[in-house]
Amino acid sequence: MPSNTSVIYLKNPTEFPVVGEHFAAQTIKDFKPVLKDGEVLTRNLVFSLDPYMRGKMRDSSKESYSPSFEIGKPLDARGVAEVIESKNDKFPVGSIIHAFIGWEEYTVLPELPTTRIIPGVRETKLPLSSYVGVLGMPGLTAYASLKDIGKPKAGETIFISAASGAVGQLAGQLAKAWGLTVIGSAGSDDKVDYLLKEVGFDKAFNYKKRSVHDALKELAPNGIDIYFENVGGETLEAALDNMNIFGRIIACGMISQYNTTTPYGVKNLMNVVSKRLTMRGFIVSDFYEQYFGDFFREVRDLLLEKKIVYKVDEVKGVEAAPNAFVGLLQGKNFGKQVVTVADL
Amino acid sequence: MPSNTSVIYLKNPTEFPVVGEHFAAQTIKDFKPVLKDGEVLTRNLVFSLDPYMRGKMRDSSKESYSPSFEIGKPLDARGVAEVIESKNDKFPVGSIIHAFIGWEEYTVLPELPTTRIIPGVRETKLPLSSYVGVLGMPGLTAYASLKDIGKPKAGETIFISAASGAVGQLAGQLAKAWGLTVIGSAGSDDKVDYLLKEVGFDKAFNYKKRSVHDALKELAPNGIDIYFENVGGETLEAALDNMNIFGRIIACGMISQYNTTTPYGVKNLMNVVSKRLTMRGFIVSDFYEQYFGDFFREVRDLLLEKKIVYKVDEVKGVEAAPNAFVGLLQGKNFGKQVVTVADL
Repeated sequence: MPSNTSVIYLKNPTEFPVVGEHFAAQTIKDFKPVLKDGEVLTRNLVFSLDPYMRGKMRDSSKESYSPSFEIGKPLDARGVAEVIESKNDKFPVGSIIHAFIGWEEYTVLPELPTTRIIPGVRETKLPLSSYVGVLGMPGLTAYASLKDIGKPKAGETIFISAASGAVGQLAGQLAKAWGLTVIGSAGSDDKVDYLLKEVGFDKAFNYKKRSVHDALKELAPNGIDIYFENVGGETLEAALDNMNIFGRIIACGMISQYNTTTPYGVKNLMNVVSKRLTMRGFIVSDFYEQYFGDFFREVRDLLLEKKIVYKVDEVKGVEAAPNAFVGLLQGKNFGKQVVTVADL
Repeated sequence: MPSNTSVIYLKNPTEFPVVGEHFAAQTIKDFKPVLKDGEVLTRNLVFSLDPYMRGKMRDSSKESYSPSFEIGKPLDARGVAEVIESKNDKFPVGSIIHAFIGWEEYTVLPELPTTRIIPGVRETKLPLSSYVGVLGMPGLTAYASLKDIGKPKAGETIFISAASGAVGQLAGQLAKAWGLTVIGSAGSDDKVDYLLKEVGFDKAFNYKKRSVHDALKELAPNGIDIYFENVGGETLEAALDNMNIFGRIIACGMISQYNTTTPYGVKNLMNVVSKRLTMRGFIVSDFYEQYFGDFFREVRDLLLEKKIVYKVDEVKGVEAAPNAFVGLLQGKNFGKQVVTVADL
């Protein structure tokens, strides 16, 4: 094992993180870890970049649902890896696992409750990136929150913001499969075309070209029953004005508010009272026990039968991860952002 | 029946309503109604003034949960009345009913699904105002929303804004009876004293004298599990910052936002995501079937056993209603605002 390249966390950003200042790739030339009992050494294959990671770039004294990144250590991510050395009987050498690994080529993993062997990876030949996207946490996020919080009923209308992203594209296809009218917003005409022509959204619009409020008035003339919230700010405000009575808001993320020191003030929360809305936040680990239940079976079957499409935005190599992450925060990715580290 | 004084709705206000401009008392000298089948004539005893009524002072083309007041007609309110003429077998002369009556001395009532005979009014001798307050819609609002949305657990902490108001004082006492630590905010030192010394709140503060954010940090050092929201705006923002993970927000009202054309923008809704909060709006009629169920029995028994206290702010006579309503919107009332029209 000649060397291990990792992306190291250097400093907390206040707005957008800057490559080289807040995080940077570093290479250890002579990487020869010695495993303790329970640990495994992984050869990392692919890992996921997600907007929630911006929330981990904070002072460690601020509590949140996900621990902060540690200064001087590699950033971590949900990824797929091969076990190449093992002091843990549950994860023998050769296992393909789903785990929190580093943004790096090789990781020494302690025994963590969220590390699992993924069944059938070599047999089904789905792209490895599937397991951190549509069949990973973003997929579970879309599936479980739509079911548990959205409580979708055939004939209803759902609006999904950041609809071409990791979570949005699957949420839209599941909602469509369950009989809803699906409306999406995205930040470029290419993304809108993709939603309409390839993913099968009923309606979609480019929020950079028109007012979200006007678009929703026009595209959802009967109002919105479920809002899948990934964006926050003005988009949330427009959705609130267009919600129906007893509407549900799945508060999955608010990416427009992550990289600013001047957050947007939402002025029409009175809609929550007058329309009897429910707005609920969650994190995907709330639904973790569902992972290898209905979710994995149902969505893997849909993928194998090619009944759902899923766009991945892939960069290659650990060194490319920091710029890809900044691009993700700026909405430059098109599809689920992943970093491919090695082939199986 | 020599005359009938009513408060007539004249014009939609944009900010605070003004007596004489937006509503005013008028007297019909010779009031001799002729009843149709199904109708009753009521002698009105007491009616309730509530902040939600401000929402009815709007253009009738704007839909909301409660129909707008009609220009040129008396305003309506939940009240207690005696049936003095009847063309409806369900409501014989002499019945004491709970109904939507006018802000007036006498009302001709059509048959409405929410009109009910109140059992035991003459026998139990509770003040009539109880039936529009602690035993009326405000009471049901506090009881049912606290149970259904708040899902209180002994040992948790609840924060109640507008705590000395119609809903707040009962919500606090029920929460206390169910084993919670109860914190309230109110707009005067007298109200705070009342909450602490007479109602039995654990902690209370005057939001006009200190920052709600700082007060909550100090008074709820372990965070807030349930926020009973009556106020909106900056108070909601402060509550959001101090909520615990899996906290519940009972979105009952947002009185700070009712009389302004420049609503406050809430900038920290990201807390809903990161703390996995649930915020849910409702209107009391969602819970109406519970009225003569557990609620009426449980709260009437508590009242008869003097286990709960309940402060009423009473004005006498229909003519006093408009000023009392404006005072209510400005927080000048102290306790549940009622208008007494006549004695039983």
